[in-house]
Amino acid sequence: MEHSTYKKWSAEFIGTFWLTLGGCGSAVLAAAFPGVGIGLLGVSLAFGLTVVTGAYALGPISGGHFNPAVSIGLAAAGRFKAGQLPGYIVSQVLGAIAAAGVLYLIATGKPGADIGGFATNGYGEHSPGKYGMTAALISEVVMTAVFLIVILGATAKRAAAGFAGMAIGLCLTLIHLVSIPVTNTSVNPARSTGPALFGPSYAVSELWLFWVAPIAGAIIGAVIYRALLSSNDD
Amino acid sequence: MEHSTYKKWSAEFIGTFWLTLGGCGSAVLAAAFPGVGIGLLGVSLAFGLTVVTGAYALGPISGGHFNPAVSIGLAAAGRFKAGQLPGYIVSQVLGAIAAAGVLYLIATGKPGADIGGFATNGYGEHSPGKYGMTAALISEVVMTAVFLIVILGATAKRAAAGFAGMAIGLCLTLIHLVSIPVTNTSVNPARSTGPALFGPSYAVSELWLFWVAPIAGAIIGAVIYRALLSSNDD
Amino acid sequence: MEHSTYKKWSAEFIGTFWLTLGGCGSAVLAAAFPGVGIGLLGVSLAFGLTVVTGAYALGPISGGHFNPAVSIGLAAAGRFKAGQLPGYIVSQVLGAIAAAGVLYLIATGKPGADIGGFATNGYGEHSPGKYGMTAALISEVVMTAVFLIVILGATAKRAAAGFAGMAIGLCLTLIHLVSIPVTNTSVNPARSTGPALFGPSYAVSELWLFWVAPIAGAIIGAVIYRALLSSNDD
Amino acid sequence: MEHSTYKKWSAEFIGTFWLTLGGCGSAVLAAAFPGVGIGLLGVSLAFGLTVVTGAYALGPISGGHFNPAVSIGLAAAGRFKAGQLPGYIVSQVLGAIAAAGVLYLIATGKPGADIGGFATNGYGEHSPGKYGMTAALISEVVMTAVFLIVILGATAKRAAAGFAGMAIGLCLTLIHLVSIPVTNTSVNPARSTGPALFGPSYAVSELWLFWVAPIAGAIIGAVIYRALLSSNDD
Repeated sequence: MEHSTYKKWSAEFIGTFWLTLGGCGSAVLAAAFPGVGIGLLGVSLAFGLTVVTGAYALGPISGGHFNPAVSIGLAAAGRFKAGQLPGYIVSQVLGAIAAAGVLYLIATGKPGADIGGFATNGYGEHSPGKYGMTAALISEVVMTAVFLIVILGATAKRAAAGFAGMAIGLCLTLIHLVSIPVTNTSVNPARSTGPALFGPSYAVSELWLFWVAPIAGAIIGAVIYRALLSSNDD
Repeated sequence: MEHSTYKKWSAEFIGTFWLTLGGCGSAVLAAAFPGVGIGLLGVSLAFGLTVVTGAYALGPISGGHFNPAVSIGLAAAGRFKAGQLPGYIVSQVLGAIAAAGVLYLIATGKPGADIGGFATNGYGEHSPGKYGMTAALISEVVMTAVFLIVILGATAKRAAAGFAGMAIGLCLTLIHLVSIPVTNTSVNPARSTGPALFGPSYAVSELWLFWVAPIAGAIIGAVIYRALLSSNDD
Repeated sequence: MEHSTYKKWSAEFIGTFWLTLGGCGSAVLAAAFPGVGIGLLGVSLAFGLTVVTGAYALGPISGGHFNPAVSIGLAAAGRFKAGQLPGYIVSQVLGAIAAAGVLYLIATGKPGADIGGFATNGYGEHSPGKYGMTAALISEVVMTAVFLIVILGATAKRAAAGFAGMAIGLCLTLIHLVSIPVTNTSVNPARSTGPALFGPSYAVSELWLFWVAPIAGAIIGAVIYRALLSSNDD
Repeated sequence: MEHSTYKKWSAEFIGTFWLTLGGCGSAVLAAAFPGVGIGLLGVSLAFGLTVVTGAYALGPISGGHFNPAVSIGLAAAGRFKAGQLPGYIVSQVLGAIAAAGVLYLIATGKPGADIGGFATNGYGEHSPGKYGMTAALISEVVMTAVFLIVILGATAKRAAAGFAGMAIGLCLTLIHLVSIPVTNTSVNPARSTGPALFGPSYAVSELWLFWVAPIAGAIIGAVIYRALLSSNDD
């Protein structure tokens, strides 16, 4: 194994660590802070900025996926070698778990701490707005599909150089602005897995949806992109 | 018909789908979420980010209009072939309708769902702030006129390369920050048409204004740009 | 007089029209909208985005000042010909007045309309937070001085190409995030003058401060920049 | 001593002045403004925009650190000469103190002024959310470590040219979105020192943590970057 593979795994570990700590951290610590809380808008911005910052800092090393669904979608679109998937996905999930652990330490570091839902994803009773499983599936599939189309388009050769990190990160902000009420927004199985291990017990039992739907959506997005939008100079 | 025409229509369909799902979706699902809702600021940001993301991902394919008024304004300014208008406009309207359908499925996927105004545009009684028809007309015409000036200026040859997507998308955010209280903000007949088909019945009867005013404004903006601002190296 | 001079004046008129309509419009129409208002954060973002959009669309034509204090500061720094000041400043003030007129038409276009302070600037009793004249003077001078330093630095030859419009526009957002409570934020005599002509009568009598302080601050910023920061490759 | 050293110190003084005035100013003056306050989201945006604006305007002169922990971390990573640390750190601290003084003048310039915590950092009783010393240490160390990784990655030779200022500034916004409830967010000893001299007396006695933790975090971030992420073309 070459040195650069370790470096890619490190970049994916750190980037997904940051995505989970920044996004879920803002939700757990700051969203509902009395009187001056950042709300769903602030959480949406935080998730997007984890990707903006990670993309410019770590993207040149690993491609800046930070998300198993993104890695799988890029492989489906022919932009990423499928053989690299296991190493990337393991790095991503471990990064998210490490982030959830650090967040747990901080969040419980006060008298009478209550971590609540700990930014886990859920549906039905555990959807922030009580949306059912079907709505959750539709939302996660559609949002991840468009996310992949944006990623594939913004990183195509014909796209404006340098702006992909802004477009992709702000796309994640946009996805959260729409869909936090439905599922607390995943579109990222690693981000869902980390907090689920430290949060309320129902989170693990609903975790399947946040692996199945984002991955299905990512593949659908890749297929749509290849069928309708790609070109030779892609 | 050449292959690339289908690709342009696909890009306009997907881009307008995303504009309507992202913008109207944030309004319907998240704007008034109890305690932590994203408010009009979050909705304004969401509309703008649909264009930022769509512009970088799809702009190189179709130009990234996602809006019949923009296509018409660009044609009036000599930047777009009028013969392409029908295909673009049909694609845009179909994309917006598809988005409204998906949003309807998600929004009604919870017990006791109430879609309210479903992010439709309106005036008088159906203006968010009860502004009358004249105020609505002025607002939509002026906002779309400036929108076209910004689009034409930011995509001129003399403009900073690559930044047009940011400037144009954030212009749509700005337009919403000002004018949601007046008309719920259209400046885009396709965005108005999609939700109107699924929303309260008055929305269709007031839809005429959100075709007439944005298109008139776009043409006015194009005329002002050509008369006062354009140059040979444009 | 050459044709291009008219074009510059047009660009400054339209840009300052947009700054005043977008910034003050968001304040008058949307800041305190019941339940979902955009607040001072939304107004701050709106002011900044008027400059972001105007800079990319109109900056290549006129330089994108949209502000008499900026034009004067740039002249003091040797970056703008003093002979062009009268034409620029008249265009800017007329643009701001036109914007205030359009905003007045929209804002009064509803039953029981109340334009309140109409986004005018003031101090003492008319400061949003009741800050006195000295605090108002310090705030406007310091904010405009730093604004000019940012403008001069971000448009220097050594600066990253293309990013000046983002940096300068977002600087105006930042200035508003800090100082709206003190003076409702001017740093721009034209922006202060437009609404004052349509707003409450005290606004005109306090208008002097919003010409004197921003211009003084702009010159101070230019002097600091030249003394401490400029270089030959500027 | 050469002329350019004075220029670098001036840039660091002005940049840290702006960081402290803009960030802490938004917190003291606007965060809790009745009804329309900008909240923690607005304060987070303000801190980030001080760096965005400072990076583009002053970065070409001094590198745009505005933070002793950043200067030390860059030195630890071999990107900055350790011999320059004293001059940079003194300039940064003096800039922050000057900003706190100006802010104190403005904030007390109204009848019945109450500066409250004056945006100082603290833990335990003086943490906004009453987080204890251990949580404060973890938060400041981890946030500063990732901040340095983002800075080092976004300014590496392989990174997209020009975007570092956006990525780094928005990283500071993100850090605040997560950690204001824990410590009021420092990650910057200079920013902590300025307000502490004018604020409540406990601030100075807790100031040690906001020198120790950000500097430790910055060195940890630099070590992680060098060990796992750096390359020859860095």
